[in-house]
Amino acid sequence: MSKFFSLKFDRLIPYVPGEQPKDMSRFIKLNTNESPFSPSPKAQKYAAEAIEKTMLYSDPECCKLRAALADRYGVGAENVICGNGSDDILNFAFSAFCDGKTPAVFADITYGFYKVFAEYNRVPYRIIPLKDDFTIDPADYYNAKGTVFIANPNAPTGIALSVEEIEKIIQNNPDNIVVIDEAYVDFGARSCVPLTKKYGNLIVTQTFSKSRSLAGARLGFAIANKELITDLNTVRNSTNPYNVNSVTQAAGIGSLEDQEYTNENCKKIIETRQKTEEELKKLGFVLTNSYANFIFASHPGKSGEAIYKELKEKGVLIRHFDAPRIKDYNRITVGTDGQMKALIDDLRCIL
Amino acid sequence: MSKFFSLKFDRLIPYVPGEQPKDMSRFIKLNTNESPFSPSPKAQKYAAEAIEKTMLYSDPECCKLRAALADRYGVGAENVICGNGSDDILNFAFSAFCDGKTPAVFADITYGFYKVFAEYNRVPYRIIPLKDDFTIDPADYYNAKGTVFIANPNAPTGIALSVEEIEKIIQNNPDNIVVIDEAYVDFGARSCVPLTKKYGNLIVTQTFSKSRSLAGARLGFAIANKELITDLNTVRNSTNPYNVNSVTQAAGIGSLEDQEYTNENCKKIIETRQKTEEELKKLGFVLTNSYANFIFASHPGKSGEAIYKELKEKGVLIRHFDAPRIKDYNRITVGTDGQMKALIDDLRCIL
Repeated sequence: MSKFFSLKFDRLIPYVPGEQPKDMSRFIKLNTNESPFSPSPKAQKYAAEAIEKTMLYSDPECCKLRAALADRYGVGAENVICGNGSDDILNFAFSAFCDGKTPAVFADITYGFYKVFAEYNRVPYRIIPLKDDFTIDPADYYNAKGTVFIANPNAPTGIALSVEEIEKIIQNNPDNIVVIDEAYVDFGARSCVPLTKKYGNLIVTQTFSKSRSLAGARLGFAIANKELITDLNTVRNSTNPYNVNSVTQAAGIGSLEDQEYTNENCKKIIETRQKTEEELKKLGFVLTNSYANFIFASHPGKSGEAIYKELKEKGVLIRHFDAPRIKDYNRITVGTDGQMKALIDDLRCIL
Repeated sequence: MSKFFSLKFDRLIPYVPGEQPKDMSRFIKLNTNESPFSPSPKAQKYAAEAIEKTMLYSDPECCKLRAALADRYGVGAENVICGNGSDDILNFAFSAFCDGKTPAVFADITYGFYKVFAEYNRVPYRIIPLKDDFTIDPADYYNAKGTVFIANPNAPTGIALSVEEIEKIIQNNPDNIVVIDEAYVDFGARSCVPLTKKYGNLIVTQTFSKSRSLAGARLGFAIANKELITDLNTVRNSTNPYNVNSVTQAAGIGSLEDQEYTNENCKKIIETRQKTEEELKKLGFVLTNSYANFIFASHPGKSGEAIYKELKEKGVLIRHFDAPRIKDYNRITVGTDGQMKALIDDLRCIL
């Protein structure tokens, strides 16, 4: 830290992304929930075509992409905002809808960035513990007296609330905004997007990083009523109106046109998740009921950290968190069948 | 605005980007200082190759790109941070180095986003008027009692300070940070990057949007001493560690390897600027001494707004600002010789 760094940030601890090993070819990488499948053919084709025109600014309004998203999700283009990943939009939401009078409200075990966004935006936050089984009690979020952030399915547990449970949370917060972060929704959970037409206090965020195989392109979006989108755009246009580059906008449109490709990939991930879960249970692992493209697993016979370290030595990267409640667990991204077989073989060897 | 939008932003007026006409083919577009030349061949090639791997996250540390920038600019990789455009990094600087005790300090006529960044980050700002001839008096910035932001060359005037003048500003602000925004430096002005080795209170930002023909790819960077880069990274990693996508990182590396291509394009822009300036003077225009890829011009016989509107009717887009001191001027991007000939022909017709 330099002597010039503003003291307002003296408590700020930045987010730590999952390891990105320099020599990736040495590893089976199951630590950042990336897709094992390439971006869709049209995503690649449209992106490649967009490159030669990158001397021109990207469309700051992302008109074509927003129209394609609106079409896909059955909403109006005015109900959509695009971002440089959904992190971008989540940060806007912490900025726009939280302040000294309106804290952020989120679970103790959830996407680790929420706490960082709150600290960075210098807004108070109230943490609601998950139940002992890592599930959320919806009633804990009724009359939240703040802006609610819920990852659904939750990370790193993979556990999902039903749309009905979330609707009750929304109904019981008429004076608060509820943000549902659906980064992992395409792997078996149900989306709350249809509820955005019914409730003016709901924002749903999604990303192209997981099910759409575009983590490296950085594309996320939110769907909400027009007024909330306007507020998010006020923040966006006050920081970086050109936040989504033109190649990524093109890739996003291509991905949406190749919807069947994404559906097929999600189906494969779900099948592989189920097969891997069975194998892990045979090895004695305790698992949460994951609806995401990852598995959250602990083993009564070996610490989470030891499993993480020994797998890394064998060339398999998974993600370990050292937070007290989950230190015995590891988050394992669901890759291809072949990758998961290698994982199981290595685990069998370790245990 | 929704009823949920934080009152802390009740005075916030977002930045307004230059018009992006939906039917661009109808216009000669000289309003957003884009390059008329395509991205370099290697930039295009490397970007195209990167697309198929975008299912993986981009390198959050931008290691290869930062190494290439460090090599190009004769600094260490630890002295470089990359951003989603230089706007991204300027926003980080307003956030990291300004607060209630440390205002932002900038000119009345300069890049319009500075004021928005200050308002968004809710930091006070002190505005220093340019002299009557639109030049900066360096002494006005001595002992600034705040973080200084100077665009050099300045926008929208194109006027540049010398490195010696900026060095005096740096020397006379030992307790303040000086940010030099060199978005337009490659078109004839001299860069202050070498001074970053000598002074721990200097940050230089640059962009790939202008001279490097990559506006639509969104890539900017800053060079400074290691401690200041660490502070900027703390902000970056608290908002969006994956702020630069992998296709853009690849394009940036390609552009740096094709340095001769950029040099040639800059030479062409400078020559076209000079020729266009001569033609404009013949038509009676009053010009500033621009070192940028744009010309700042007023005409004693016709208002700036009328010229802007009549050119638009003829299919030529330039940028008009309605701020009182510069409302008689227009900012005209330097395009190809052919585009500028069309501009001059239309102006001859209008006047």
